[in-house]
Amino acid sequence: MDRILLGHGSGGKLMHDLIKKYIAPVFELPTLMDSAIVNINHSGKIAITTDSYTVSPIFFPGGDIGDLAINGTVNDLSVVGAIPLYLTVGFILEEGFQISDFERILKSISKSAKEANIKIVAGDTKVVDKGKGDGIFINTSGIGIVPDGVELSPLKIEVGDKVLISGSIGNHGIAVMAERNGFTFEPPVLSDTRPLNGIINEIMKNFASAIKIMRDPTRGGVATTLKELAVDSGKDITIYENSIPVHDTVKGACDLLGLDPLYVANEGIFVAIVESQKAEEILELIKKHPFGKESAIIGEITGGGGKVLLKTSIGGTRLVDMLPGEQLPRIC
Amino acid sequence: MDRILLGHGSGGKLMHDLIKKYIAPVFELPTLMDSAIVNINHSGKIAITTDSYTVSPIFFPGGDIGDLAINGTVNDLSVVGAIPLYLTVGFILEEGFQISDFERILKSISKSAKEANIKIVAGDTKVVDKGKGDGIFINTSGIGIVPDGVELSPLKIEVGDKVLISGSIGNHGIAVMAERNGFTFEPPVLSDTRPLNGIINEIMKNFASAIKIMRDPTRGGVATTLKELAVDSGKDITIYENSIPVHDTVKGACDLLGLDPLYVANEGIFVAIVESQKAEEILELIKKHPFGKESAIIGEITGGGGKVLLKTSIGGTRLVDMLPGEQLPRIC
Repeated sequence: MDRILLGHGSGGKLMHDLIKKYIAPVFELPTLMDSAIVNINHSGKIAITTDSYTVSPIFFPGGDIGDLAINGTVNDLSVVGAIPLYLTVGFILEEGFQISDFERILKSISKSAKEANIKIVAGDTKVVDKGKGDGIFINTSGIGIVPDGVELSPLKIEVGDKVLISGSIGNHGIAVMAERNGFTFEPPVLSDTRPLNGIINEIMKNFASAIKIMRDPTRGGVATTLKELAVDSGKDITIYENSIPVHDTVKGACDLLGLDPLYVANEGIFVAIVESQKAEEILELIKKHPFGKESAIIGEITGGGGKVLLKTSIGGTRLVDMLPGEQLPRIC
Repeated sequence: MDRILLGHGSGGKLMHDLIKKYIAPVFELPTLMDSAIVNINHSGKIAITTDSYTVSPIFFPGGDIGDLAINGTVNDLSVVGAIPLYLTVGFILEEGFQISDFERILKSISKSAKEANIKIVAGDTKVVDKGKGDGIFINTSGIGIVPDGVELSPLKIEVGDKVLISGSIGNHGIAVMAERNGFTFEPPVLSDTRPLNGIINEIMKNFASAIKIMRDPTRGGVATTLKELAVDSGKDITIYENSIPVHDTVKGACDLLGLDPLYVANEGIFVAIVESQKAEEILELIKKHPFGKESAIIGEITGGGGKVLLKTSIGGTRLVDMLPGEQLPRIC
């Protein structure tokens, strides 16, 4: 048997065999149940998050739908100030999906879960008829504990605060786009998919009170994330084009494809708005982490109003808004 | 705009508008974020669960994919002894899906969340190209607290324990099957989708120590659930065909379609294995609840071995196993 059958999703022996043979062992679970009971030695705030992954293609330079799903949910928990602990994984498989591809994704999930130091505790497998899905969709949901005293909020943002970014932008979106369209770049553009809990934990341990808010600029890119923060805080954010880290190949690919890197999805960086006086120290700490070498201060809070302003490299000022529709569908 | 576009899933203005106009208001949230922070005043065990729903068709007699997704996850938490608190909802929409159908499902989600007394705190919306999905898939994940002292386990099952069922079997599967194939029954067969936390809370409050294990016999039906429990406990379970509640119309439909009601999915009943001495009292309490009127003691633990035995109405004994493949695909 080398392909997924409808029967793999119907609760019977075929499903139990699939779980027992392929899924449970890589997750190091006796079996995969849809519920798990875990111990939380923390009476207080916890973070809950969910995300479904429908990226196409499922394998792309630098990652696949499996590590993307794990890292994405780990990162969603991390940017709200939580320490990610437990994840659930739900698969929607299409009849006829290659079991070898499924195995490859399962291994990738297992590997990235270990790297992020989180535990997959429960899961679910459904199968839809051929032509009613697209190989594999994955939902990952997760919980993490929010240490006492941590309270990130866009309402804490004040004029003068600095905007930090932890790495270069646009890599994930361009990597997926290139794979989808059969482009290759030299050097190749790799997705930045990676877990941010380590690096965020570092700065939260040392600078919790100076960090106003964090976000991971995935779908919609840095532009959309900053616009959301501007609206939520009622403050104007000014960013400086020259200070935004973008790889030359990403820049080139964006020129070629008519895309703006500010709107291209990222899967391994975060944006933080921090107290001005601590910004340089926080940046220094981020730069010490392997995932933060390209970090930079890219802007600041310049007034009230809810706008995002881009100071361009030739000295102009451009208003940055959300895209009306879609730039890159099915990027995550 | 009356249909879902790819842009509704891309993180930009179209997605924000969809969330703001349709999703957030029915969930009574200011917006729908993929993360939420909640307070848990409970340092101890919590239950985590996940389930994806791909039922086809999405509307069926007695329910739809929306209330199914809420009730299913509420029930998964309830049967492990947890008090469900918070749910997340992830949508995978197909381009071209009718927004009016989406609205109907959102209302159904909101209504069933209220009925189950749980809160939807976070969510996610993805859109896949036309022909790469099937209207709508929903993932619901959730958490609940496990009261101190509650510890359900198949390993507690002993010879002599009774098998209780909280209602009649096969209703959900037959209702979906009928809708899918254009059959009508008189009286109509309605899905039993409903939240079980109320009724389970009642018996757990009063009989926690007498309840060994509970399960919701969804995909694979009562037969598969009992077989899992027999294997997990290493005990034999004997059930009596005459004592299993099945509506005549469900029996008739199963005869017509060549199905065995023991393998047909349920979405609003639970199976409990309980101490023999308390079984009648527990049954009495279940019967008092509106969702438990058809409850019955259907069998008992008869020995060691991991088998399920059915005493038939004509006096024979049949071995009950899991189905090898699928009986009714995409039933939940």
